[in-house]
Amino acid sequence: MGLPITFLTDYGVADDFAGVCRAVIARIAPDTQVIDISHGIGRHDVRQAAAILADSLPYAPVGVHLAIVDPGVGGPRRAVAVRTEGEGHLLVGPDNGLLPPAVDVLGGAAEAVDISESPFRLEHPSATFHGRDLFAPAAAALLRGVPLHLLGGPFLAQPARLATAEPHYEGKSIVGEIVYVDRFGTLVTNLSVDAVPDYAVLEVEGLEIGRLRRTYGDVPTGGLLAYEGSGGAIEIAVRDGSAARRLGMGVGGRIRARLG
Amino acid sequence: MGLPITFLTDYGVADDFAGVCRAVIARIAPDTQVIDISHGIGRHDVRQAAAILADSLPYAPVGVHLAIVDPGVGGPRRAVAVRTEGEGHLLVGPDNGLLPPAVDVLGGAAEAVDISESPFRLEHPSATFHGRDLFAPAAAALLRGVPLHLLGGPFLAQPARLATAEPHYEGKSIVGEIVYVDRFGTLVTNLSVDAVPDYAVLEVEGLEIGRLRRTYGDVPTGGLLAYEGSGGAIEIAVRDGSAARRLGMGVGGRIRARLG
Amino acid sequence: MGLPITFLTDYGVADDFAGVCRAVIARIAPDTQVIDISHGIGRHDVRQAAAILADSLPYAPVGVHLAIVDPGVGGPRRAVAVRTEGEGHLLVGPDNGLLPPAVDVLGGAAEAVDISESPFRLEHPSATFHGRDLFAPAAAALLRGVPLHLLGGPFLAQPARLATAEPHYEGKSIVGEIVYVDRFGTLVTNLSVDAVPDYAVLEVEGLEIGRLRRTYGDVPTGGLLAYEGSGGAIEIAVRDGSAARRLGMGVGGRIRARLG
Repeated sequence: MGLPITFLTDYGVADDFAGVCRAVIARIAPDTQVIDISHGIGRHDVRQAAAILADSLPYAPVGVHLAIVDPGVGGPRRAVAVRTEGEGHLLVGPDNGLLPPAVDVLGGAAEAVDISESPFRLEHPSATFHGRDLFAPAAAALLRGVPLHLLGGPFLAQPARLATAEPHYEGKSIVGEIVYVDRFGTLVTNLSVDAVPDYAVLEVEGLEIGRLRRTYGDVPTGGLLAYEGSGGAIEIAVRDGSAARRLGMGVGGRIRARLG
Repeated sequence: MGLPITFLTDYGVADDFAGVCRAVIARIAPDTQVIDISHGIGRHDVRQAAAILADSLPYAPVGVHLAIVDPGVGGPRRAVAVRTEGEGHLLVGPDNGLLPPAVDVLGGAAEAVDISESPFRLEHPSATFHGRDLFAPAAAALLRGVPLHLLGGPFLAQPARLATAEPHYEGKSIVGEIVYVDRFGTLVTNLSVDAVPDYAVLEVEGLEIGRLRRTYGDVPTGGLLAYEGSGGAIEIAVRDGSAARRLGMGVGGRIRARLG
Repeated sequence: MGLPITFLTDYGVADDFAGVCRAVIARIAPDTQVIDISHGIGRHDVRQAAAILADSLPYAPVGVHLAIVDPGVGGPRRAVAVRTEGEGHLLVGPDNGLLPPAVDVLGGAAEAVDISESPFRLEHPSATFHGRDLFAPAAAALLRGVPLHLLGGPFLAQPARLATAEPHYEGKSIVGEIVYVDRFGTLVTNLSVDAVPDYAVLEVEGLEIGRLRRTYGDVPTGGLLAYEGSGGAIEIAVRDGSAARRLGMGVGGRIRARLG
């Protein structure tokens, strides 16, 4: 078989949005393996989607990666397809900041084109369902071996990037923030474990959590802990419970690593 | 590989109902590509399922289409398999009105058989899980190339149809209704954009929405709008919000297009 | 293609946990068919997962079966892979009682190994996401034809088993319990229909339900009934409603079959 395709959206599983896109892909590029990464991204949460895409694609095979979280659908935002340096992954999605963090971890952009007017769009494309009418057909064209530059143009210097609040120093502390909350209520931050020395004492929103632990088993049931999440960032959790509910915190909450 | 299969049910994703059907299909027809359309149909909502199936199957490859929303399971309702004119799609499901709208858009029925007593049923079929014991094995038999008429009999003139409340004139208005609500709270109606002139003013349950807009971007955040949905019908939405929650309306609510 | 893989977890569909495992499998064992059984197991509910796995795998093709419900991740619990007698299914998961009921129905264990230190682990495995870093790579190694004994060692006599509250006699009654509740509010018990004579009168938590019915159609809408579930066990349901909500009962509730 040819390349596989991974698929990430905020379409949820209650409706047929993701399913219709799968149908379009299967009609244009038969026998393609579709690897669903997640359709549970928070509605229109481009920032969360960008973080999850960048965390998950390094585990994926070389292929096409279709990602759709698109609050600006039908408006002037561009659509984009990117080929990466190195392994040559192909990413397709709205040009709203969703793709660049994943492109970076996959080696950077070798080529990027504006596919807003892709000749592979379905006939009579709707103004509201570009997943079905524009993005899935473009991704399927790449699966069939169509070269990137035939999907549109003009060439883009770089896809658009989100403004990010990078971790930074404040006095003797490193300060970051909670970037998403998973279904277990774990608070995932943008503070990398590598940037924080072992002796640092962690706080979220002023509440002291203590030093980094290795795993849940290091605290009793119901205990609060900070540990290295599977993506390499510091996460805050409650063993067998929900840190989000216990602490009443969510995306945007501040985490502080006190160094002295 | 052979034909793919699409799969739509009201089984949800919390249980293993859809998963066990996938297992049955894979055991009987190995290496078949399964394209999940949706398992989020409202419980026993045959009408919603019929509308979604008819909207999505035109995007699907030629294959077998398994659809199961079956409030009458274990009772006297028949089970049916249909081959369409034209491309020769094969549809399998309960004979309760679920399949005919999709059969219509795929070209009409060329052949329909009662598969209630299909010889391909699993041994000792249960009275409550026909998805696993009757429908999935029948669909898998078609995937293996078994001709439709060997799945059962007698031949049916036509699968059973749902009674529908078609849009109709009331004085100087065209009146339709909300047929389902998606996860974003968008109200999907049965009024086709093609049936409504541009100058018509739209109302839902007596609340004036205004004329048709092209896309979300035509109103500010929080704004209410009517637009052509991806299926060609008029939809009512709130930009970055939920029309269902804002308006307190759901399936069965009336939409009116005032022509003068 | 080679063997397929079935996949069952408590990861849910809101996050990318299951998706990243699918990516890992596709990267190591390309073109493998993944059959999702369920990702809706209650968080850390090993008992429910074990019951559902044992109910569903008899319908699955011969292959690798990856099951992850793992409250002890990062702690001292072992990881295990099992080959069954008979058809030679291969099961992979935590050694916490999850696998044995399924191994039993598939013919019993022919060989079992401790894969906690599997050489196929990803580099720098995390302490909290063994699905991605340990279990999926081990399962993918089996898909590529690596023999079971090369996944680790030492050999285990048997995987660990859960303590179970088997149905038992109390005077002139057989007493069992509710082992899980499905999305429709159906109460699934551990009382096998085969163990209960036709004339027995059923009670749940002291409320009389009456004798076994054949199917929903045997009671009016809103009626309460007991019937043979698709797994062969007695289930309690409300036609077109939720028995769990109506009766206020859940897992652990007692069912009694009165014989006189």
